[in-house]
Amino acid sequence: MRGLKTPVVVAGGVTKFGNRQASFRDLISEAGKACFDNNKNINPKDIDGFILSTVLPERTAYQAHPAPLACELLGLRPEKLFQRVENMCGSGTVGVRNAYMAIASGLCDMCMVVGVEKMYTPVKGSIAGDYLAGGDREWEGCFGVTPTAMFSMFARKHMEKYGTTVEQLARVVVKNHTHANKFPYSRFYGRYDQEPITIDTVRSSQMIAAPLTLFDCGSNSDGAAAVILTTEDRAKDLTDKPVYILGTGQVCHGYTWATMYEDFSTFPSAKICAQNAYKMAGITPDDIDVVELHDCFSISEIIETEEFGFCEKGEGGPFVEAGLSDYGGKVVINPRGGLLGCGHPVGATGVAQAVEMFTQLRGEAGERQVEGARIGMGHNLSAPIEHHIIIYGKERPS
Amino acid sequence: MRGLKTPVVVAGGVTKFGNRQASFRDLISEAGKACFDNNKNINPKDIDGFILSTVLPERTAYQAHPAPLACELLGLRPEKLFQRVENMCGSGTVGVRNAYMAIASGLCDMCMVVGVEKMYTPVKGSIAGDYLAGGDREWEGCFGVTPTAMFSMFARKHMEKYGTTVEQLARVVVKNHTHANKFPYSRFYGRYDQEPITIDTVRSSQMIAAPLTLFDCGSNSDGAAAVILTTEDRAKDLTDKPVYILGTGQVCHGYTWATMYEDFSTFPSAKICAQNAYKMAGITPDDIDVVELHDCFSISEIIETEEFGFCEKGEGGPFVEAGLSDYGGKVVINPRGGLLGCGHPVGATGVAQAVEMFTQLRGEAGERQVEGARIGMGHNLSAPIEHHIIIYGKERPS
Repeated sequence: MRGLKTPVVVAGGVTKFGNRQASFRDLISEAGKACFDNNKNINPKDIDGFILSTVLPERTAYQAHPAPLACELLGLRPEKLFQRVENMCGSGTVGVRNAYMAIASGLCDMCMVVGVEKMYTPVKGSIAGDYLAGGDREWEGCFGVTPTAMFSMFARKHMEKYGTTVEQLARVVVKNHTHANKFPYSRFYGRYDQEPITIDTVRSSQMIAAPLTLFDCGSNSDGAAAVILTTEDRAKDLTDKPVYILGTGQVCHGYTWATMYEDFSTFPSAKICAQNAYKMAGITPDDIDVVELHDCFSISEIIETEEFGFCEKGEGGPFVEAGLSDYGGKVVINPRGGLLGCGHPVGATGVAQAVEMFTQLRGEAGERQVEGARIGMGHNLSAPIEHHIIIYGKERPS
Repeated sequence: MRGLKTPVVVAGGVTKFGNRQASFRDLISEAGKACFDNNKNINPKDIDGFILSTVLPERTAYQAHPAPLACELLGLRPEKLFQRVENMCGSGTVGVRNAYMAIASGLCDMCMVVGVEKMYTPVKGSIAGDYLAGGDREWEGCFGVTPTAMFSMFARKHMEKYGTTVEQLARVVVKNHTHANKFPYSRFYGRYDQEPITIDTVRSSQMIAAPLTLFDCGSNSDGAAAVILTTEDRAKDLTDKPVYILGTGQVCHGYTWATMYEDFSTFPSAKICAQNAYKMAGITPDDIDVVELHDCFSISEIIETEEFGFCEKGEGGPFVEAGLSDYGGKVVINPRGGLLGCGHPVGATGVAQAVEMFTQLRGEAGERQVEGARIGMGHNLSAPIEHHIIIYGKERPS
């Protein structure tokens, strides 16, 4: 059984991702405008709930307490709910989940979620270093356990255990960058118009933490995204194509990534998370047409493909190699290009996934439309032991 | 109509507030232990949701992404929900509201909320300065609009318009510090055992922003608090005295405090927030026995007393002067001593209010028990235009 009310998505919009000549504030305004432009039937005065997903504005925009700042920028005066949420790279999905809870529980009727991150600053250049504080500074960070170091261990273990190859890792990158090439808001839009990205492009790029090269790593970016959720009843006046939230899952199995981990070739908490979401939605992985999953590194996508049940455990490499996660395959994974190709403004990513699901399930994705898409899934991880999933549907859940 | 399930509070605990020789981590563990000790029927393994309310660990504990860190410290592995919320000084109440939503909407069954703030650091001493980033840095902070400067303008306007006196402001402080003197976990516990605090103590302390002296200002502190919420059904095995959430409200009317404000003697958004919460709870202010409200400055309590309907507009000064907000009066306000007397670890305050409501409505508050308390209210503000309220009840809502 679901909540008291049935939440639906009725609007969505994104900014261009990349190294933007735009401030934290600019990005919020841009995503908000894109979202309102997407559905002109929505009156901003009717928005009684507001959620901001963002990770580090305290350090990168020199601004704390950003939720009401965003409300003011967007001309909103919510009188039922407002808040900022943070779950590192999962912040965006948490924001959308909270909007779901707020509406399902009856606390508000129409909730806007904005995800935003300003990752390049004029003073410091890329501030990726600040994000290392997202790991356990006292117990692991001090020993050099950065995200890339960590995921390189997963890649090595998976290669050792299942025979996964660096070429298979690179296939994930080639697929997602090729998708990004077609999406105007992605970081790498149009980059490969003259010369396609190849496995050699990936393998010959700078080695970061073997076997992961620069291209195997998600592309930290500036960017923002926004969606509006409301009740099914209210949606009737706003759109004839609302998108439903069918299920959701969230699992946290700890914090210290490296020292607590038992088997570096698996994400057990991702599996539990997906199973819980499938159960709530009443579906199996076979029912899913399109997925936006957290390819923070190429190896992440391979392991997630397995844990989510799209292929057998250990078969993630061959799966992508056979084109089964591409257009015309079993399931289309990361049609916008994912974190690798579209970019990863940490607080915005999960919200941008929601926008993509909204667009795909309405059949409005143009060149990158997944034909006949009826059920989609968005996924963030905020560590290999922390996962966040939302399943979206074109039709009303039963 | 309420959510699908009826959320109740079944456990609560706090740490000592003050300048603590304890780290961010220590405070989380201490509050978690106090909460589990409070109800030995709860098995931590049954906790499937976790919310951390905290404002600035990125700057004060040099640690981002704190929610899963707290899970690990407390031995929790939530498989339904986890998140960190931040709404500056309202973070604690937002955390408890989110637990309410999570349970009412059916997303999780048993949710722990921990609020924590480490405000004194060995490196920098008090880091109150960092919290200035909570105001609008680009548009107001740069002109010196600090919280104390801002609230001094409210005090002056209220004095001019309604004849409120500095002695009446000081009466709020004397009342709340006197309450704190009796609460072992408060910052000023036992401070006045030999010599009671008087109006002269307050007025002769250092002038911060006229007419507000040091004692008119909330006492930034280290501290943490924790509560556990579950469904009414699950609570049956855990306690025979669950505490209900009867209503809640939240209003955000903007961000730029000084430049957007129309009348510095009022908090219009506090009034709307309270009215929404009363409506949801089906009560009037007269039904409320005990209140924990956000006395970040003495003037805040006076204006809130009016906006919440405990007295007529402009009568907040005479109300406290006549002892009507003290034991034996019309409503007992801030029995623990409030932010002025107990202390204000920003992310923890709203959760500590929830613990106090839980304790008072169960009749377990000892020396500071409000006799026959049946309905209580917790309130945070995170700016004069942002308010957060929860109404708690001893009996099941109808």
